[in-house]
Amino acid sequence: MIARNPDYEAVVRASFAVQGLMAHYGAELARVEAGAVDIAVPFCAALSQQHGYFHAGVTSAIADTACGYAALTLMPAGSEVLTVEFKINLLAPARGDELVARGRVVRSGRTLTVCQGDVYGVGAEGELHCATMVATVIRVSAPG
Amino acid sequence: MIARNPDYEAVVRASFAVQGLMAHYGAELARVEAGAVDIAVPFCAALSQQHGYFHAGVTSAIADTACGYAALTLMPAGSEVLTVEFKINLLAPARGDELVARGRVVRSGRTLTVCQGDVYGVGAEGELHCATMVATVIRVSAPG
Amino acid sequence: MIARNPDYEAVVRASFAVQGLMAHYGAELARVEAGAVDIAVPFCAALSQQHGYFHAGVTSAIADTACGYAALTLMPAGSEVLTVEFKINLLAPARGDELVARGRVVRSGRTLTVCQGDVYGVGAEGELHCATMVATVIRVSAPG
Amino acid sequence: MIARNPDYEAVVRASFAVQGLMAHYGAELARVEAGAVDIAVPFCAALSQQHGYFHAGVTSAIADTACGYAALTLMPAGSEVLTVEFKINLLAPARGDELVARGRVVRSGRTLTVCQGDVYGVGAEGELHCATMVATVIRVSAPG
Repeated sequence: MIARNPDYEAVVRASFAVQGLMAHYGAELARVEAGAVDIAVPFCAALSQQHGYFHAGVTSAIADTACGYAALTLMPAGSEVLTVEFKINLLAPARGDELVARGRVVRSGRTLTVCQGDVYGVGAEGELHCATMVATVIRVSAPG
Repeated sequence: MIARNPDYEAVVRASFAVQGLMAHYGAELARVEAGAVDIAVPFCAALSQQHGYFHAGVTSAIADTACGYAALTLMPAGSEVLTVEFKINLLAPARGDELVARGRVVRSGRTLTVCQGDVYGVGAEGELHCATMVATVIRVSAPG
Repeated sequence: MIARNPDYEAVVRASFAVQGLMAHYGAELARVEAGAVDIAVPFCAALSQQHGYFHAGVTSAIADTACGYAALTLMPAGSEVLTVEFKINLLAPARGDELVARGRVVRSGRTLTVCQGDVYGVGAEGELHCATMVATVIRVSAPG
Repeated sequence: MIARNPDYEAVVRASFAVQGLMAHYGAELARVEAGAVDIAVPFCAALSQQHGYFHAGVTSAIADTACGYAALTLMPAGSEVLTVEFKINLLAPARGDELVARGRVVRSGRTLTVCQGDVYGVGAEGELHCATMVATVIRVSAPG
């Protein structure tokens, strides 16, 4: 996929850095390429649901964020992204030492971008596919 | 709607109390009735996205949680719930002093329950409808 | 809801009339109001799935169409609509003498409109709620 | 993927043969393998929307059907499938001489199966990716 803004990585990293929720989760950008962004978050009890696994809210937040930034990597300078909607299927308990969301652009349009996000629990036994998301993202012009 | 477990409120409150993420958000159960659960969370910077509003991850986490517990209120004793999938449309920026998610059961089946969740930003100007969710929830038997 | 084009009903009826699939189904526009469109289709064997009920493809086609036209009723003259995406939960078998889809606008924006569509099987025993949809619709300018 | 019923292809073909809507569309099963089912439908005016392309109702009907049968290929003898819900993003106009839906199992569970369905318009210029679906399918026991 072709990036129209050569500085896309800096744009994504600057936006990510001011997201209170991602800092709060201890999440980090593990990969930023044209059309592909990965976000990883280490397990801690504050991110759990009632059975001690990662809460679906964390799973969906990092998948949505990875999808939004994957979309942003392909947009012209001066763009920002808003999530229009997403749908997520929770395939297996989100357990592991770390949760990794991989956002990939499926179709990049002038106004709307469709992304797929897959989330994996990573631990001693390897990777477990725990969720799959499809998200629709809209481009908006960054304020002045 | 008819609750099959007269102790449904205690069941919901006990489960909510051990969700690390909900405590982390400062979220509370604002309403627990048969087929209807509301969750409210006050704004703080740690829950924000890059523009300073509530992060969509918070919006979707409290909507999903409200839907899951709304489903649980109608289930027999000894039940637990898992979210199979959900879809959320983000209608407007999630801003306000407080974010409130209202989960309502649309159809309650033996295995699967379908819920609708609507999220409102509440502030000085009143309520703003900022997201709508449809979630599919599955009943599982609580471990022994 | 406020229509910006006083001729919205004629616009919707003209567009509906050239949809081959809707004619093929024997579907008709049962209601066209600002923000609300209903479509009804009588049962026939050609519209069935393997158990003899209406096929989910019919249910989703009329719900999607009702949502799209509900969105169109609120748009300025010279607009057309495209469905960006939809999600449908099939709540009960779609049986009855007639299937009715009711599309309602949830939020109308300049570019995107979000609609809810509910589908009912109508027969001797009354109405059965058999599906609920959320659809995202985009406005495009009509050619020429 | 491993089929538990060696006769899965016959089961899928027998069920497909009694779907009125698929016959009505002129659709055929182009591939039936363990975890993978393709359905193809040739263009005709009766399947069109207002711009002369395949109607989204056709796109979603064949994608949903391909997903359901892909799920069925992995189930034990005596199983039937019902679609719980699906979500589809329409990526591009569905045009071409033929529309092909490819349903693939993402995760096969005892009760629920999650599938992805992708739809392509096939014509002189090759294949165009026009829609992507995620569907949740439930196993039910076939009546005695």
